[in-house]
Amino acid sequence: MNGAILAVGSELLGTDRLDTNSLRLTALLERYGWTLVRKAVVGDDEERIGGEVLRMAQEASVVLVGGGLGPTSDDVTRQAVAAALGLELTEDPAVVEDIRAKFRAFGREMPEVNRRQAMVPHGALKIENPRGTAPGLELKLEGGGPDGQGATIFLLPGVPRELKALTEGHVEPWLAQRSGGAVRETRTLKVACVPESELEERLVPAYEAFGREQITVLSKPAEITVRYVAEGPEESRRGKLAAMEERLVELIGDGLYARRDVPLEEVVGQALAEAGHTVSTAESCTGGLIAERLTRVAGSSAYFEGSAVTYSNRLKQHLLGVPGSVLESEGAVSEAVARAMAEGVRERLGTTWSVAVTGIAGPGGGTEEKPVGTVHFALAGPAGTVHRRATFPGDRERIRFQTSQVALELLRRGLGAQSES
Amino acid sequence: MNGAILAVGSELLGTDRLDTNSLRLTALLERYGWTLVRKAVVGDDEERIGGEVLRMAQEASVVLVGGGLGPTSDDVTRQAVAAALGLELTEDPAVVEDIRAKFRAFGREMPEVNRRQAMVPHGALKIENPRGTAPGLELKLEGGGPDGQGATIFLLPGVPRELKALTEGHVEPWLAQRSGGAVRETRTLKVACVPESELEERLVPAYEAFGREQITVLSKPAEITVRYVAEGPEESRRGKLAAMEERLVELIGDGLYARRDVPLEEVVGQALAEAGHTVSTAESCTGGLIAERLTRVAGSSAYFEGSAVTYSNRLKQHLLGVPGSVLESEGAVSEAVARAMAEGVRERLGTTWSVAVTGIAGPGGGTEEKPVGTVHFALAGPAGTVHRRATFPGDRERIRFQTSQVALELLRRGLGAQSES
Repeated sequence: MNGAILAVGSELLGTDRLDTNSLRLTALLERYGWTLVRKAVVGDDEERIGGEVLRMAQEASVVLVGGGLGPTSDDVTRQAVAAALGLELTEDPAVVEDIRAKFRAFGREMPEVNRRQAMVPHGALKIENPRGTAPGLELKLEGGGPDGQGATIFLLPGVPRELKALTEGHVEPWLAQRSGGAVRETRTLKVACVPESELEERLVPAYEAFGREQITVLSKPAEITVRYVAEGPEESRRGKLAAMEERLVELIGDGLYARRDVPLEEVVGQALAEAGHTVSTAESCTGGLIAERLTRVAGSSAYFEGSAVTYSNRLKQHLLGVPGSVLESEGAVSEAVARAMAEGVRERLGTTWSVAVTGIAGPGGGTEEKPVGTVHFALAGPAGTVHRRATFPGDRERIRFQTSQVALELLRRGLGAQSES
Repeated sequence: MNGAILAVGSELLGTDRLDTNSLRLTALLERYGWTLVRKAVVGDDEERIGGEVLRMAQEASVVLVGGGLGPTSDDVTRQAVAAALGLELTEDPAVVEDIRAKFRAFGREMPEVNRRQAMVPHGALKIENPRGTAPGLELKLEGGGPDGQGATIFLLPGVPRELKALTEGHVEPWLAQRSGGAVRETRTLKVACVPESELEERLVPAYEAFGREQITVLSKPAEITVRYVAEGPEESRRGKLAAMEERLVELIGDGLYARRDVPLEEVVGQALAEAGHTVSTAESCTGGLIAERLTRVAGSSAYFEGSAVTYSNRLKQHLLGVPGSVLESEGAVSEAVARAMAEGVRERLGTTWSVAVTGIAGPGGGTEEKPVGTVHFALAGPAGTVHRRATFPGDRERIRFQTSQVALELLRRGLGAQSES
């Protein structure tokens, strides 16, 4: 079962935009066992759209086309596909009425241009669009295609929220029905602060047990996403997934922070909320990034009190009470200063936990002894203060992100937290 | 002059990665007057790669292929293209020697698999790869293509830094030579905190004077990028660009913050550094985002002192000296509190400027009087304190970004700064 995806729109052939709809459509195809064999982007050009759709209908049994269903004269997907397939294109009075009613609901008259959106190729099935005026269209070819059965072509709006609504409401059930219940299901594990090569080594027994192609490791600095997948009818598939999860969790060990696709700050926040604890941060090289990440989470005011961003030594003394003598003898980037920052902010802000970072994000400021990427961390909590030192590779942005990641991970481990759901 | 772009790699047909190389290649084609007519992605499949390249060579005079030149058995672009074009593929001893030398430079023996990278289709020109082992390849077809002159096909490595090196070193000069000096040059203006519809209205005279298609407006919340483009030989092109710049700058007016593609925090930072001023922030709903943005800029320690992130009312009083009575009578989200925060942090941290924000980022916490998205800003500086209130649409992330943008823009206007270069 092959699938193909076409994105229509001259703006997608420029230097600023990529076709991101295809990721959603790809996920859908994968889930129901289709193999994506090709994706393409063409501009608002009848001949190119028609040619591409015809070609895709030869190599794939389902062709998903997004874009070109708007009301303006450069929206030509309907015309292009009808012409390429030799189908008559006529205005559908029921669709005109439907569009008219949608405008009326907003107290407006339907502009004449929107009649274009009521043009339907002969034999096409209309797909209701709950978020816009243009209906989607489904066309079934008679014969041909990779299996001789004739491809099915879906014409969908390019606006992401409309495309999403039509795929969920119509394309997904269509694919599900044809999969015979044999869904391909993907699950996610999230891992923080384990080097990719080390994680790969830990996972070798799982690769051997479940197959290399069933497990994918996606790596960013200090954050790894492990995807695992199983196929087949529900009961056996769920059994496989449970077995894989158990083995993977065991192999990954310490760095696992969640069993779903969720950012680290959300897991930390949930643990703080559940424990009824509060947190503050004292930040130098991250400049507020740790606080910013903690407060991305809705409801974070329940546990996040505040932060002192102390870029200068003067403020480290003044706001956090780091002794000037320690700054002088050890330097701002040191274990003693990290500890004093964490303890200072915890005491002054009166929180259960405090995490502090001081480091060199670069590109300047490195020395032989403390190169760019050197960071000292301290976590102060009910049982005292722990310290860690790390040296991160990469540019300023990467060093700062990795620093925030390790700080949040220290806090998570301090809380003994992991997202189980 | 038509161009087409093909990305090769099964990983680009998954749910996690998009072909971003094509944006770089598109910019290059545009600059030298080529029109991109189609882009496509296929997996590591000889037949599909070959078929797609053949088809692109019929509709475009230059075909840019990225990926599939690695040493492993699923890297089949060389084989696929040679087979599709009916060209013999043989090992090139000079390339083998070159690869061997590259490994030797790292003190390693060349693995046997890398011999695959020395396979060259008959008649192909080799393109030196300064950042990797696989040379690029250039193939000129005899006749055919859209102009009957035969397309030129470039096979490039998929690794972005390698692709970049080969395009800059070889493909760009090739395209430049064929453009006869008639380059299409794009310039950028950046605008903060002007609504898109308002900016569009301001620009109408420029659309009329220079042509609608020469000016592009790319809009994000509270940040707009205006691109303008002119073609032709250098002297006349530069003249056109200068005239466009002058007119656009005049029309845009106040919100223009830079004449190149640069983030707002960099322009603000440069102005602070030049003035020898310092800055601090007091943040509530942004949770540190303004400080984080200011410190993204390398060298920001020259002007950024620090911040107080005061999420709780307790800390607004304790750290910033906001009177409890004001918090009680006006509420935390109010002009009086924003002013007290800005003045409090400026005094306590001893900076030239301080910017403060307090608002409701949502999704919870809104009231009828102060709905989600309500934000109060204050900028305290040498000439006193100014206040502003805004109500932003969108979700938590958008509200926070827009808030940081307005805060930085207030500071920029306070400094009277604009990036001229």
